[in-house]
Amino acid sequence: MLIPQISPIADAALSARLKAAIDNKTKPLGSLGRLETLALQIGLIQQTVDVTVERPAMVIYAADHGVTDERISLYPPCVTRQMVENFLAGGAASSVLARQNGFEVHIVDGGVDHDFGARPGLIDCKVRRGSRNFVNEPAMTRAECELAMQRAMTVVDGLAGNVVAFGEKGIGNTTPSAALMHLMTGIPLAECVGAGTGLNRDGIAHKQRVIERALARHGTPQDPMDIMATYGGIEIAMMAAGMIQAARRRMVVLIDGFIATSALLVALKLRPALIDYCVFSHCSDEHGHTQMLRHLGVEPLLHLNLRLGEATGCALAMPYVHAAVNFLRQMATFEAAAVSEALA
Amino acid sequence: MLIPQISPIADAALSARLKAAIDNKTKPLGSLGRLETLALQIGLIQQTVDVTVERPAMVIYAADHGVTDERISLYPPCVTRQMVENFLAGGAASSVLARQNGFEVHIVDGGVDHDFGARPGLIDCKVRRGSRNFVNEPAMTRAECELAMQRAMTVVDGLAGNVVAFGEKGIGNTTPSAALMHLMTGIPLAECVGAGTGLNRDGIAHKQRVIERALARHGTPQDPMDIMATYGGIEIAMMAAGMIQAARRRMVVLIDGFIATSALLVALKLRPALIDYCVFSHCSDEHGHTQMLRHLGVEPLLHLNLRLGEATGCALAMPYVHAAVNFLRQMATFEAAAVSEALA
Repeated sequence: MLIPQISPIADAALSARLKAAIDNKTKPLGSLGRLETLALQIGLIQQTVDVTVERPAMVIYAADHGVTDERISLYPPCVTRQMVENFLAGGAASSVLARQNGFEVHIVDGGVDHDFGARPGLIDCKVRRGSRNFVNEPAMTRAECELAMQRAMTVVDGLAGNVVAFGEKGIGNTTPSAALMHLMTGIPLAECVGAGTGLNRDGIAHKQRVIERALARHGTPQDPMDIMATYGGIEIAMMAAGMIQAARRRMVVLIDGFIATSALLVALKLRPALIDYCVFSHCSDEHGHTQMLRHLGVEPLLHLNLRLGEATGCALAMPYVHAAVNFLRQMATFEAAAVSEALA
Repeated sequence: MLIPQISPIADAALSARLKAAIDNKTKPLGSLGRLETLALQIGLIQQTVDVTVERPAMVIYAADHGVTDERISLYPPCVTRQMVENFLAGGAASSVLARQNGFEVHIVDGGVDHDFGARPGLIDCKVRRGSRNFVNEPAMTRAECELAMQRAMTVVDGLAGNVVAFGEKGIGNTTPSAALMHLMTGIPLAECVGAGTGLNRDGIAHKQRVIERALARHGTPQDPMDIMATYGGIEIAMMAAGMIQAARRRMVVLIDGFIATSALLVALKLRPALIDYCVFSHCSDEHGHTQMLRHLGVEPLLHLNLRLGEATGCALAMPYVHAAVNFLRQMATFEAAAVSEALA
C-alpha cells in the first residue's frame, strides 16, 4: 500500500517571525509557557503566523479483539458495541467532552462484532467482525491491516477542519497496545502491561502471560506493518493510518492516551516526521504510558490521572490549542496597547 | 472588621450520593481521575448532586506598590495603569482567555497610582494611590487594609454566578507576596523570592535584600491582618478578602498563581475552611509557588509553565470545572445506556 509522505515542519524564517509575534504580546517574555511553544508548533504546521482553529474533528475508530477470548478484560466484549451505541446517543464521556469543546464527532465502525446496519452518525468501514485471537494466529492478515489503514485515511480525507483528535473503542485493546509498545520500544513487557479498565494484580499477570504466549508463537516481524497486523487491532491500525494522513494534510494531530500512543509508535516507524504534527494531550494513568512518552521524548500538556481512552484526553487538551491560537491572534502588542516594555 | 464565617463542605451523606452518581457513569471506575474529585468537591460546595456552572466571574484587583521605589521589578510602575487600560480594551492575556472561557470580567481599581475617572468596565474601589514602600513604613495602615478588604468583599457580593476566579495586576507585587509567603509558612526567604517578570540572579538577590530590610524594620506582627497591612499590597488584601467572601457565598473559588496563593495563605489563617472551596488551577513557574502548594498539601490541575498572573491560570483551568459538571450532568449511566458493567 502507498503510505503518504510527510514533510517536517521546521522553517527557520517562519520560526523567527512566530517568535517575534509571540514576544511582542503584552506579557513578560515567555510567561505563557507551554502555550507559547504550542503556538509556535501550530504556526509551523499551518505555515503561517495567522494561525487558526477550524472545525476540530474527533474521529473514534471502534473494533473488537479476538484476544478477549483469553479473558484479559474486566468488561465483556459486547461493551464495544454498547459503547458505540452510547457514542451515537451522545452519552459517553467523550461525547460530553466533545460537545463541550466544539468537536465534530465521527464514529467509525472499523471492526465491531455486530451488525449495526445503516445508522446516522456511524461510518461503516468494517474490515471484519473483530480481529483474531493473536495467541493462536495473527490478529489480522496483512491485507486486512492495509484495508483498515486505507479506510481510516479515507475518513480523514473527509474532514474539513485543521485539527483532529483520534480516539478508540475496543474492549481488550490495552493488550495489543502493550504488545506493540514492547515490540516498538524494546521496553520489557512487564513495564508495558497495565490494569486497563481495572484489572487486579493477578489479572495483569495473566494478561502479560497471554502476550508472552503470542510473542513465543509469532516472534518479531521486521516490518512495522506486519507487527501491527500480527499483534495490533483494527482500530489501532486505523488510528496509526489516520494520524499519518492527518499530518500529510498538515492538520494538528491530538494524541490521546496509551492506545493512541501505541498506534503512534507504529506510525512513527513508518513516517518519523509525523511527530512534528502531534500535540500530546495528557499522560494517562495506564501503566506504560509515562514510559511511552518518555521514550518519545515528549512532555504532555495534562496530568489529570485519566485512563478512559475515547479521545477524552484530546478533548480536554483542546482548550490549549484554542488558547495558543487565541493569544497569538487577539492579544495586544506592547506598541498597540502603549504598554512600556521591560527596562533593559 | 467583621470577617465572614465559612462552613466546611464535608457531608458524608451527600458525598456518598455524589460518589454513587459518579461511579454509575458509563466508564471504568475512577477513570476520569481528577475530574471525578473535582465533581465531588463542586457537589459538596453547591450542596447538591445537581451541580451547575452559572456565570463564572473573573475579578481582577489592581494596585500599585511603593516598594517599586527599590527597583525590584523589570517593568516601570506605570505598566500597572497601562495594563488596566489593556484589560479594559480586551487585549491582555487574561482578557483573551476570559473571553475564550466565558468569564464575566470585573476590573477593580483598588489602588492604582492614576486617576482613571469614571470608565465603563472599571470598578472604582481605590483605597489610595498605591501602597507605601514597606522598606520604610508599613505598606498600608490597618484601616486602609480593612477598607481594601471590605471593598473587595462588596465586589464579590455583586457577582451573580457560582464560580469566581481572582486575579491581580500590580507591578512589583511578587515582592510583597514573597514576604507574605515567608511570614505565613516559615519557609526561608531565599526560597520565597523569585524572578517575577524576569529578574536575573542579581535582581533576585537585590529583591531578597529589600525584603530583609523590611523584615528587620517591622518584625513579625502577631495578627495576619497586621502582616497583610505591613508587608502586603492593596490588591493582595483584596484578593484575600474576596476569596473569603466567595467561599462564604459557597462559590467555587479558582486560585491562580504565586500572588493569588500568597493572598490565600493570609486568608486561610483567618478562615481555614476556605480551602474546601478552592480549586488550585496551576503551578506557576514563579519560584516559590511549588513550595506554597506543597505547604498547603494541594495538587494543582495544570502544569503549563505559566508565570503571568492576571488569573490566566484560572481561565485555563475553567474547562475542567465545566468538564466535571458536564460529565456528572450529561453522561449516561450503565443502566440508561444498557452498557454491561464490569465482571465481578
